[in-house]
Amino acid sequence: MQQQSFESYVRHGLTPFFRLPVVDDGRITRERYQGCDAALLGVPYDGGTTYRSGARLAPYHVRRVSALVPGYHPTHRLEVFQRLSAVDCGNVMAPPFNPQAMRELVHAEVAAVLDAGSTPFVIGGDHSVSLPVLRALAERHGPVALVHIDAHFDCSVAENWGENFHHGTPVRNAVEEGLIAPGQLFQIGLRGPWGGESDAAIPEAFGAMHVPADELGTTGAATIARRIVERIGDRPVYLSIDIDAVDPAYAPGTGTPVPGGMTSRELLGLLRGLAGVRVCGCDVVEVTPMLDHADVTCLLAAYALYEGLALAAIARV
Amino acid sequence: MQQQSFESYVRHGLTPFFRLPVVDDGRITRERYQGCDAALLGVPYDGGTTYRSGARLAPYHVRRVSALVPGYHPTHRLEVFQRLSAVDCGNVMAPPFNPQAMRELVHAEVAAVLDAGSTPFVIGGDHSVSLPVLRALAERHGPVALVHIDAHFDCSVAENWGENFHHGTPVRNAVEEGLIAPGQLFQIGLRGPWGGESDAAIPEAFGAMHVPADELGTTGAATIARRIVERIGDRPVYLSIDIDAVDPAYAPGTGTPVPGGMTSRELLGLLRGLAGVRVCGCDVVEVTPMLDHADVTCLLAAYALYEGLALAAIARV
Amino acid sequence: MQQQSFESYVRHGLTPFFRLPVVDDGRITRERYQGCDAALLGVPYDGGTTYRSGARLAPYHVRRVSALVPGYHPTHRLEVFQRLSAVDCGNVMAPPFNPQAMRELVHAEVAAVLDAGSTPFVIGGDHSVSLPVLRALAERHGPVALVHIDAHFDCSVAENWGENFHHGTPVRNAVEEGLIAPGQLFQIGLRGPWGGESDAAIPEAFGAMHVPADELGTTGAATIARRIVERIGDRPVYLSIDIDAVDPAYAPGTGTPVPGGMTSRELLGLLRGLAGVRVCGCDVVEVTPMLDHADVTCLLAAYALYEGLALAAIARV
Amino acid sequence: MQQQSFESYVRHGLTPFFRLPVVDDGRITRERYQGCDAALLGVPYDGGTTYRSGARLAPYHVRRVSALVPGYHPTHRLEVFQRLSAVDCGNVMAPPFNPQAMRELVHAEVAAVLDAGSTPFVIGGDHSVSLPVLRALAERHGPVALVHIDAHFDCSVAENWGENFHHGTPVRNAVEEGLIAPGQLFQIGLRGPWGGESDAAIPEAFGAMHVPADELGTTGAATIARRIVERIGDRPVYLSIDIDAVDPAYAPGTGTPVPGGMTSRELLGLLRGLAGVRVCGCDVVEVTPMLDHADVTCLLAAYALYEGLALAAIARV
Amino acid sequence: MQQQSFESYVRHGLTPFFRLPVVDDGRITRERYQGCDAALLGVPYDGGTTYRSGARLAPYHVRRVSALVPGYHPTHRLEVFQRLSAVDCGNVMAPPFNPQAMRELVHAEVAAVLDAGSTPFVIGGDHSVSLPVLRALAERHGPVALVHIDAHFDCSVAENWGENFHHGTPVRNAVEEGLIAPGQLFQIGLRGPWGGESDAAIPEAFGAMHVPADELGTTGAATIARRIVERIGDRPVYLSIDIDAVDPAYAPGTGTPVPGGMTSRELLGLLRGLAGVRVCGCDVVEVTPMLDHADVTCLLAAYALYEGLALAAIARV
Amino acid sequence: MQQQSFESYVRHGLTPFFRLPVVDDGRITRERYQGCDAALLGVPYDGGTTYRSGARLAPYHVRRVSALVPGYHPTHRLEVFQRLSAVDCGNVMAPPFNPQAMRELVHAEVAAVLDAGSTPFVIGGDHSVSLPVLRALAERHGPVALVHIDAHFDCSVAENWGENFHHGTPVRNAVEEGLIAPGQLFQIGLRGPWGGESDAAIPEAFGAMHVPADELGTTGAATIARRIVERIGDRPVYLSIDIDAVDPAYAPGTGTPVPGGMTSRELLGLLRGLAGVRVCGCDVVEVTPMLDHADVTCLLAAYALYEGLALAAIARV
Repeated sequence: MQQQSFESYVRHGLTPFFRLPVVDDGRITRERYQGCDAALLGVPYDGGTTYRSGARLAPYHVRRVSALVPGYHPTHRLEVFQRLSAVDCGNVMAPPFNPQAMRELVHAEVAAVLDAGSTPFVIGGDHSVSLPVLRALAERHGPVALVHIDAHFDCSVAENWGENFHHGTPVRNAVEEGLIAPGQLFQIGLRGPWGGESDAAIPEAFGAMHVPADELGTTGAATIARRIVERIGDRPVYLSIDIDAVDPAYAPGTGTPVPGGMTSRELLGLLRGLAGVRVCGCDVVEVTPMLDHADVTCLLAAYALYEGLALAAIARV
Repeated sequence: MQQQSFESYVRHGLTPFFRLPVVDDGRITRERYQGCDAALLGVPYDGGTTYRSGARLAPYHVRRVSALVPGYHPTHRLEVFQRLSAVDCGNVMAPPFNPQAMRELVHAEVAAVLDAGSTPFVIGGDHSVSLPVLRALAERHGPVALVHIDAHFDCSVAENWGENFHHGTPVRNAVEEGLIAPGQLFQIGLRGPWGGESDAAIPEAFGAMHVPADELGTTGAATIARRIVERIGDRPVYLSIDIDAVDPAYAPGTGTPVPGGMTSRELLGLLRGLAGVRVCGCDVVEVTPMLDHADVTCLLAAYALYEGLALAAIARV
Repeated sequence: MQQQSFESYVRHGLTPFFRLPVVDDGRITRERYQGCDAALLGVPYDGGTTYRSGARLAPYHVRRVSALVPGYHPTHRLEVFQRLSAVDCGNVMAPPFNPQAMRELVHAEVAAVLDAGSTPFVIGGDHSVSLPVLRALAERHGPVALVHIDAHFDCSVAENWGENFHHGTPVRNAVEEGLIAPGQLFQIGLRGPWGGESDAAIPEAFGAMHVPADELGTTGAATIARRIVERIGDRPVYLSIDIDAVDPAYAPGTGTPVPGGMTSRELLGLLRGLAGVRVCGCDVVEVTPMLDHADVTCLLAAYALYEGLALAAIARV
Repeated sequence: MQQQSFESYVRHGLTPFFRLPVVDDGRITRERYQGCDAALLGVPYDGGTTYRSGARLAPYHVRRVSALVPGYHPTHRLEVFQRLSAVDCGNVMAPPFNPQAMRELVHAEVAAVLDAGSTPFVIGGDHSVSLPVLRALAERHGPVALVHIDAHFDCSVAENWGENFHHGTPVRNAVEEGLIAPGQLFQIGLRGPWGGESDAAIPEAFGAMHVPADELGTTGAATIARRIVERIGDRPVYLSIDIDAVDPAYAPGTGTPVPGGMTSRELLGLLRGLAGVRVCGCDVVEVTPMLDHADVTCLLAAYALYEGLALAAIARV
Repeated sequence: MQQQSFESYVRHGLTPFFRLPVVDDGRITRERYQGCDAALLGVPYDGGTTYRSGARLAPYHVRRVSALVPGYHPTHRLEVFQRLSAVDCGNVMAPPFNPQAMRELVHAEVAAVLDAGSTPFVIGGDHSVSLPVLRALAERHGPVALVHIDAHFDCSVAENWGENFHHGTPVRNAVEEGLIAPGQLFQIGLRGPWGGESDAAIPEAFGAMHVPADELGTTGAATIARRIVERIGDRPVYLSIDIDAVDPAYAPGTGTPVPGGMTSRELLGLLRGLAGVRVCGCDVVEVTPMLDHADVTCLLAAYALYEGLALAAIARV
Repeated sequence: MQQQSFESYVRHGLTPFFRLPVVDDGRITRERYQGCDAALLGVPYDGGTTYRSGARLAPYHVRRVSALVPGYHPTHRLEVFQRLSAVDCGNVMAPPFNPQAMRELVHAEVAAVLDAGSTPFVIGGDHSVSLPVLRALAERHGPVALVHIDAHFDCSVAENWGENFHHGTPVRNAVEEGLIAPGQLFQIGLRGPWGGESDAAIPEAFGAMHVPADELGTTGAATIARRIVERIGDRPVYLSIDIDAVDPAYAPGTGTPVPGGMTSRELLGLLRGLAGVRVCGCDVVEVTPMLDHADVTCLLAAYALYEGLALAAIARV
């Protein structure tokens, strides 16, 4: 059983992320984020989904179950939310039928977060929400390192669905737009089969480090994490966590599940192993609550998000 | 499809009841409720449950789905939340293993609500949360009329479970404590079988009006409502809505379901038919989200709560 | 909330039907059933199912939830289990791949029940379990009246599935074998579409009274029941309750659901309306727990079974 | 149990709508539909959904469960698929992020259906798929009668979501584009609350006949249907069936459920009561399989579709 | 997110296995299978199930979700469906109450497949469908190697259920009938407890190689696969994959789950490790969709089937 | 498929634990347990739960699914229920709102079990049921070794919920009351985050051996088990198995799940590795059937319980 202060529950009618303070005045300004180290933003948008939609509901459910996640990190020996002033900044919402509005709104919002010296943590929504976050980050930091945890490459070409931007394209978009630093693309949790022989062509040409889920199991999450940390050095790094990196047993609540995935222990262990990198942003995407059972997927998403926040807290030290 | 303003969703990271303003400072004072016509309080307590527990989670889920309930009432021709300044006042929380603390905390909180001239709307929790609400109401208004919508009499004797107070006893407790005005107990949705021949003895001795679910179907909710309204007159009336009054087909998410119950149309129609009574308080209890499917029970609970608020809005006119 | 004695739960590790006494020594003899008015038998067999299988699990789950059904009948003003000495006699079990063994075992078991002067109450299993019960009854009583509550005629011809006996044939089998008295077949809850124009030919030729679900709704369960009671008179009557007579909203846990069915109130009301008929046996079949949600179907089955027992209790008076 | 020929199942690896013949060559031409009275088209598109997405999966699941729907209509005394040569014509598929492509593709496809003298039956998808069907119909027949069965008016103004076309607008769009004949808009199953007082303004100004779900229950589906038939006369009529017209108890699998809805018997009875009208097209929309349980919603959708086909079969006579 | 061509989805109203061409004319002849390398056959039969039935529905659901499995195998560097002309040949269907008919029909069908030089891939149904496949294979190839992936030995003796053939007996049947080559029985994924000490007697006497799930975890799937490949050499090998080999976490949708099983990564890795063996047939059995959640079991079954097809594609080279 | 004797199922209307004999006369006396080696007791109590309640239903469901667990242990080469005369002794039931009554009743019952020379096996209920068991054990044996398998320390201080005893406190209670022998506390499956830095203070001060879930994965369950066995020696040892030690993928049906947990293979392997220790008692707690899917959690609980019984059977030799 989980140890929580009774007081901490008193009057919790609402459940912001991790029971954090809430700033949600609906205006996009630098002032809004001033003085907060980490800005948590929901993006309830799934207009970029190609198979089972529903990720738009994730911010509501991840908030709800995150109330159960305590704050002290026993591996890092760190009271995360004391080191890091984190705030629930509400949702960035766009009509589900307007992909461009979503990209513009998320871009503007994250830019404001960065202007105020805060770090964005985004809870999707489908994976198409990552591109505008990366755009805003690259504007500020230049090309970043991208740790992309996913079952898929997300490098679909525009021809696949007659559209340049959707949840299968963010990594290709980011590569093409120069948002990722050369040699700084890390894709972990990959597995097949693929749509075609050329599926890996774009990231391979870009020099990506590829760690299939199988290899992660054989080599171990800690070793893989160490290698990534070494290659990243002190570059700003963006973590993009597609919950379908994890096996459907651990994360049934997702739109395009692929058997043979990571375990929850591997996901959390990998994230813990990244201690020391300079996290400049993070997202957790593709959680589909309608397909979840007993909140297990939402809970795992909340824990992954917590690990991302812990990395940011360490980097702040 | 539901018509809702896009703007109304913008930034809705949190989902207070009906997207209402939030007052949740954790103090029990009259000032806290000043100037609000209706105070919505969650009571996430199920320590009084005898069969399938879990009603403690209802306030979180009813809040979440209530975001979908619009405000204009087409039968009463009334913009409910414009007429009635309603506020989400958070939860009254007691440890689940301390029934007495629950009763004292709810009593004190509702007393503060009433002191400020506001009307309490309580979302349980199990049915044992109703007693302290009725106590506070009777202190202020004297004995009230009780419209009790339920599959059960809730008049268990203390011997049944070796305990005077639990979710099977609130009506007996209220009768014994003199909280209900003579001839002003209305029990609707009842059905059998019973534990024994004497199950109805207490309410019958008290002169209760009994409307089994079958009779409601035959006579019609509108007619029944009319009879109740006539008998109540201008007395202050408390509505206690146990969701198990409704058939398990409409409300699977409840702890002690009984087949043969009311339809959702009968429940909502009955409530609409009570237009004109002076609602002095209302609760919706026994919603068990873990047993719900696709939120249908939580949604029905939110709609029933809305009808209660609409009645209060009419009475305010 | 349901009123139940705390004592009644003490030590209920096991959950026989309605918490009744258990006789389960595995031998088929007249002595086994001596002195018990009603013998409750599970038949966990679904080898006769043509679409979604799984009814074999029903006896386990109906037993479990029947622990929640109290004993006093407020309409009949009757303490059912005091009037009627009812006993849980365990299961009649046949390998699922041996239809003939099932028919022989059920036949022999029910014959022993009848030899001892007891009344059989059978919980299937699929509808093919009813035929051997009817055979044993007809051996004892001659052709009986059959009140058959179902969405289907159950008069499939042997050609349909290349087999004379399965869950779509029991009424045809019973008609052909002369187990039903002329003019004494009552089929309630029927609805379409049908496989072909001739679907009703066999029962119509037999002079069956047909009450589609729609007509039941329009005319009312009480009126229909009265007509049936009049036509049956004092003949021994067998009740066969296929849970798919009820709409899938009320009974999702069944193998061949048909929308547009009876409500739970209509089913229970119909059964209550049969008060006075001489029940010589009863079954509740086609409950598929794997497709149920929150036990709503199993619970309705238990309540229907209780109503059948109440009818037997009245007839005993 | 359902009576079906064993032969009819042999080799049914695939499950086209109602086990009908399949024509699916992917070309939009008049020849494709030549000689078929009714063309069944899936439109797996939910890019117009504002709340819970997922209706894109409906055509796959409705096809699957429709295999269980037999063909003979006992009320109309009609072998539907013998009178009406109906064909499963596959899906019209557009990328979920391209609403305009969806509208153009559906429009072109339905135009080809009509050019060949066939009647379109469309299985959505969300309600935004109805507009292009109505456009094609109006091009051919002029303004049509619209029987719109829904919990909502579907007359949202463009400002609500910053978009002129989505699943909340098809009726407003059709009115504004002159696709509906004056006095020939029938909206059944409506219920509140509404977003605002003006929600009904557009259809009321257009002279729509409004039948709230409550009134349907009081007046009866047969009577309402008779009134509609009289007012329609021999005009071509389009049936648009939003499954959320039905109560969530009967149809949990939908995106924007509203308690207090129609029963399955009322929906099917209403459709049967329309016998005699000249059906020029029909859709069933807003079925969300991810939220369904035990296929009850999908099954009801298949039965509603069957009733629409039966109406077309009658009109053919 | 999964990369799939938009074109590949266009008009996919039906979902044959892996979106393959369909040959389904209902006749069993050699011509039917001519020119197809791999013949995929569903056998929707669960009449051999001893505990939770429902595997009969698997072919419909595995087909549906297999539409999501892409074709290129990144480990084998192989476009599977280009190397291997695979065809969905529909279902072999027998009445669920006629085990002998099932055995005869499957036997005849597979014989026709083999006569045409094609390789059978069978999707059950319960495990009793494997025996007739093995019979047809042994008629053609003589005794084969059997890679049997399962939690159980499937060597029940006839006395257990009073029946020589059911889903607990196929390996014993095959051993007794001489269908397996000496020393060529490989059983992987086994775990206890057992019914009795003698459970392993038959396979041990036959010289089976036994790899419990625990040992697979310790030794690694790749190593185990290598050992099997070495022992098989160039003998024709049949793969029989009972999904309950995998842990219930990964495959909840099965009738007789046993905790402590393989992971999905181990199952898929084991199959990949068998590259080079001469696959003469394959089945995937015991998938029970009614017990599945979010299609995770069906999806894993489809992926396992794909790996089997990939092995056949390699062998064809 | 599982091999089970057909005979073993015959007449299994009721499902006692592992189909064992039943002794359930409701009296607490030494005679009641005389001559039985292992006494299985359900404690359907969840009044100590702080988050998602519902563990009170576990004894009913674990009993039901345990009917599927065979008796022969292939690792230990042991027919468990032949070596060990085990008996289902029913439930110890207390009102859910009376924690003290629960503690007293369980204490008295277990004392009677011990007086008769029998070993108690308890199926909760929440983790607060373990304390009275430990009290009775310590009275008899003096302080015992405690193997505590859990995601949490269960050492909450009284201030957390304003209460000294609940499901987050049993280990602290046991330490403070001197029920555990010095150096004999083993906590396995732990993981974070924690409520605060001091969460581990109490067990660390007590010299507990801590094995986080991660370390168990790296080191291996067998090695960990060996270390524990060595440190325990021949002391009497109590096994307390909180099902939330296992990852939510394997055990979704629990109240306070924590991602990153043990696999089912690790749990069962750990228990098997403890062969040789002198088991003086065992519990399996925190199983919440309402949150389970397809019985996977209940089944795992039954298997864990079986492993505990196997350890007792070995110790008896």
